[in-house]
Amino acid sequence: MNQIITIGREFGSGGRELGRRLSEALGIAYYDQEIVSEIAKRTELSEQYVREVEEHHSIFSYPIHIGQTFSIQPNIMLEQHAKIYAEQSRIIEEMASKSDCVIVGRCADVVLADFKPFRIFVYADLPSKMARCREKVPGERHLSDRELRQKILSVDKSRAKYYAFLTGRNWGDKLNFDLCVNTTQLVIKEIVPVLAKLFA
Amino acid sequence: MNQIITIGREFGSGGRELGRRLSEALGIAYYDQEIVSEIAKRTELSEQYVREVEEHHSIFSYPIHIGQTFSIQPNIMLEQHAKIYAEQSRIIEEMASKSDCVIVGRCADVVLADFKPFRIFVYADLPSKMARCREKVPGERHLSDRELRQKILSVDKSRAKYYAFLTGRNWGDKLNFDLCVNTTQLVIKEIVPVLAKLFA
Repeated sequence: MNQIITIGREFGSGGRELGRRLSEALGIAYYDQEIVSEIAKRTELSEQYVREVEEHHSIFSYPIHIGQTFSIQPNIMLEQHAKIYAEQSRIIEEMASKSDCVIVGRCADVVLADFKPFRIFVYADLPSKMARCREKVPGERHLSDRELRQKILSVDKSRAKYYAFLTGRNWGDKLNFDLCVNTTQLVIKEIVPVLAKLFA
Repeated sequence: MNQIITIGREFGSGGRELGRRLSEALGIAYYDQEIVSEIAKRTELSEQYVREVEEHHSIFSYPIHIGQTFSIQPNIMLEQHAKIYAEQSRIIEEMASKSDCVIVGRCADVVLADFKPFRIFVYADLPSKMARCREKVPGERHLSDRELRQKILSVDKSRAKYYAFLTGRNWGDKLNFDLCVNTTQLVIKEIVPVLAKLFA
């Protein structure tokens, strides 16, 4: 069976960077933008819309704030979201069947349970997540501390709701993961070569 | 500063085995029985009594069940426990000052905070902890499933109370650790050489 590594992560903890670097260290596939493109192709929705739904899971957090969708009726939106999530699950299953890979987010730890993935959760304390956001995302530099804190908490709350809704589990509960990595004091670039040895 | 590794662990998760093997892999000190002996020497209490207090933290879980101590007045017992915990903290600080080492339990992650320890938490799901207990502790083979489950839950509850009492923190909260290792599916003997590379 293919070696599948799933990465759950708190917003700003560097989980995506850890996933990407781990896939590079192992020389295996890393799926992220490809999933968005493939969903867009299959659902005939725009990539931007798919990305916004994936990022904000906004159906779970009324009122809706995803740009052009204000004019869409809630029932149509619900249908579109359901389509996106269904395609997303199908696509990550196809990808996991194809080859070894790293998949970040998307409840992949549960969706791909049959593949017996190695499940990593990446987290950090709030000050370090705020610092990482300011450093990595240029658009977030102008936010006040309070706004940034609010944004981080709100993204994670939305991820937690989405995860609970789709899986019936508590998001971030360490029992659902094989390894939980706190990036508050660890340097991702340094820890990845070590983690990679788990799969050697 | 010396490299200090602290291991918090759920009862039956194999945290002690992981700590011992890690110290062997790194060629550094592993303190466990030495701490008990040193406390006994300094407090003039028996090693058995010190071990029982360390294991059951029974002052936090009335009624008291530690063998010969039924006849001791609660206030004297409280005093003895306080003495044991104070000596314990002093001794692990002395040990951490002396050389690199691995210390399991004993709130060492908090007691030794000034040493900036690498803090590991070892945990597992209940069935796997039950299986490990039956395999490793001969005395627990005769317990029914229900009794063993009760024992595991009760030891962890007592550890949680002790940790909260001494540190003001939630025991097992992943934010208090750098790495959390789920031994439900991982083989300790296999993961230790990988973890050791974190300190190479």
